[in-house]
Amino acid sequence: MVRINENFLKLQAGYLFPEIGRRVRAFAAKNPQADIIKLGIGDVTEPLAPAVVEAMRTAAGQMGEKETFRGYDDSGRGYDFLIDAIIENDYKARGVELEREEVFVSDGSKCDTGNFQEIFALDNVIAVTDPVYPVYVDTNVMAGRTGGRIDGGRYEKVVYMPCTAENDFVPAIPDGKVDMIYLCFPNNPTGAVATKKQLTKWVDYARANKAIIFFDAAYEAFISDEAIPHSIYEIDGAKEVAVEFRSFSKTAGFTGLRCAFTIVPKQLKACTAGGEAVEVNPLWSRRHCTKFNGVSFVTQAGAAAVYSADGKKQISDTIKFYMNNASVIRDGLGKLGFAVYGGINAPYIWLKTPDGVGSWEFFDAALEKANVVGTPGAGFGPAGEGYFRLSAFSDLASVQEAVKRLAKL
Amino acid sequence: MVRINENFLKLQAGYLFPEIGRRVRAFAAKNPQADIIKLGIGDVTEPLAPAVVEAMRTAAGQMGEKETFRGYDDSGRGYDFLIDAIIENDYKARGVELEREEVFVSDGSKCDTGNFQEIFALDNVIAVTDPVYPVYVDTNVMAGRTGGRIDGGRYEKVVYMPCTAENDFVPAIPDGKVDMIYLCFPNNPTGAVATKKQLTKWVDYARANKAIIFFDAAYEAFISDEAIPHSIYEIDGAKEVAVEFRSFSKTAGFTGLRCAFTIVPKQLKACTAGGEAVEVNPLWSRRHCTKFNGVSFVTQAGAAAVYSADGKKQISDTIKFYMNNASVIRDGLGKLGFAVYGGINAPYIWLKTPDGVGSWEFFDAALEKANVVGTPGAGFGPAGEGYFRLSAFSDLASVQEAVKRLAKL
Repeated sequence: MVRINENFLKLQAGYLFPEIGRRVRAFAAKNPQADIIKLGIGDVTEPLAPAVVEAMRTAAGQMGEKETFRGYDDSGRGYDFLIDAIIENDYKARGVELEREEVFVSDGSKCDTGNFQEIFALDNVIAVTDPVYPVYVDTNVMAGRTGGRIDGGRYEKVVYMPCTAENDFVPAIPDGKVDMIYLCFPNNPTGAVATKKQLTKWVDYARANKAIIFFDAAYEAFISDEAIPHSIYEIDGAKEVAVEFRSFSKTAGFTGLRCAFTIVPKQLKACTAGGEAVEVNPLWSRRHCTKFNGVSFVTQAGAAAVYSADGKKQISDTIKFYMNNASVIRDGLGKLGFAVYGGINAPYIWLKTPDGVGSWEFFDAALEKANVVGTPGAGFGPAGEGYFRLSAFSDLASVQEAVKRLAKL
Repeated sequence: MVRINENFLKLQAGYLFPEIGRRVRAFAAKNPQADIIKLGIGDVTEPLAPAVVEAMRTAAGQMGEKETFRGYDDSGRGYDFLIDAIIENDYKARGVELEREEVFVSDGSKCDTGNFQEIFALDNVIAVTDPVYPVYVDTNVMAGRTGGRIDGGRYEKVVYMPCTAENDFVPAIPDGKVDMIYLCFPNNPTGAVATKKQLTKWVDYARANKAIIFFDAAYEAFISDEAIPHSIYEIDGAKEVAVEFRSFSKTAGFTGLRCAFTIVPKQLKACTAGGEAVEVNPLWSRRHCTKFNGVSFVTQAGAAAVYSADGKKQISDTIKFYMNNASVIRDGLGKLGFAVYGGINAPYIWLKTPDGVGSWEFFDAALEKANVVGTPGAGFGPAGEGYFRLSAFSDLASVQEAVKRLAKL
């Protein structure tokens, strides 16, 4: 008789965003006249850059001609035209040298951050921040690397690193030893960034303890402070201990197109139970090429256009547009007396709810009294309790109106 | 210290197609004048249908306009416009009723057939045909559901079901109990199909033993014999015991675009170790939505065009074109005295090598004497030894020339 993977039964039944959707639909059904402003899910709202659209239209046409048609992307790891653009623009420009074989193009950072744990043993100890992007934890639960659920939505055997206003939302090095460390900067959901000094501490810890850092840099394009690193490889020695996840989703509005990439340096090593060092790059390559078959040529052509002169300009304009929204929210709520974080180097504003009001209570009040949808901080982990996330992915009039309405709370 | 998943070290070092590529490159380097005809890797060669190209160009344009831009595919399970077209054309037309929630659109059958095992326990016994598409086995090796490698490239703890000319390349029901059964019809690599009667035996076995069938129907569009089922759900009771994998890759030349879908009926159940029945559909939904973020809107628009009146006609013409190639290869080699199988309901011809010549020996001879590249049957498993796969994905002049040259062997 076929048996299920019972680790799936440990998972929390309701995922955060479906629960938000349920509450919003229920409210809208009761209040059909309400003009609801959605600053909840972190999805982009601006259309694709014209350079990207044009490149995709051209690529689609090429797929319709025998001479230019492309079937399987043979390596499954991405076309050289895109990989070279990534290396040149995202890394070389910041002093980081990479080889083609260190770049793996994929259909999303959600997939990559979720799948990467597969190539490691189940008895490694994982460490995550709290609050955290739920995918890091849920995929480890499914794999069996955690125990059961405990209070507040946490899981046994996982090391949680609280991030609050007290530590500037950058976690402290844990006391004990951990093996697989998930870090995300600029952070979702808090909007915090890590300085070079802070990241150096983590790289040093990982080198000393032979741990691996899963560095999610999906929001690096939103960094405005010149001193903040965009890549963990700007830290000396990071190539020995870190993989880095990048995405076109937020950078260039590709949430509906699906394109991302992961950097796996050749210097990065893990070990067997017997202590023998093993290179991680060929392990990931084997996993990637066995369970994945590459990204659409049309999408890759669109992604490469992000790096063209026109593409860079258009994408930069859209990011400025979103970051202006962020400053409207941040400054507006600040003036209303709310304690606000993030929103300077990230498209998320992390709001401290006033008077110790709970996250979900604040969510309901914002929905019912201001008709504004945000994301309850508690949905990202117990340390997110008492916080509320607002996204800058909207239009200017909506965020201005949202701030005005939130004054009522 | 971070430890690797040592199951990866059990995997065979060289994957079949890279080894073929290596030998072809070495030969081409030594013989730069040779006009090599490649009938090895099963990749399509004809361009996309005009209806698909047009739909993708339109969709790309919509992504560039604020009013029609689409971000995340909220459910991550595919757009209703595509799911409805799939249900109507691929299933209802053959008497199979499905609900939207039973269809999961994905970026490839390789991914789906590789990932689906994740939701089942590691102590289930898997059964695969021999020869077999390597992804089914390799992904179970990675997960730890097999033992180590043994003779001929097989793995311990896996039940292999030989498929040879003697059983018409359709495996016999195994003597012992197995839990997870991988079947692929029309078959890659043998080109064989399973009749309704043969599939009924498998469904009955699975129902009696509470096993699950992973039915890979990626090549169903190539079936010409009206009596052959296109879907396993044409068999009574199959919804209780089978998932089905379908793909646009070969049907509509989407190998470079990436779109497929998997059917997970609501009636399908597995159980916990304690014997409690659990629905498989919500488990897969949780996995799919946690580790995957949907298929590009542009690609889904292209896939939907496959079901338009123009799309159907254009795709049918391309399939006829490939199947004419298949009959040229099959008939030509038959006349030369080779024993040939497949090529009637599938784009693969499975050739018995003459005089007990080994698969790789035949591969080398075909490459060196005829400059024709095929795939050694032994690469798909020990029971493939003494066979050779030729693909119909080429142009007519090339397959005619290939047959002429193979006469030399």
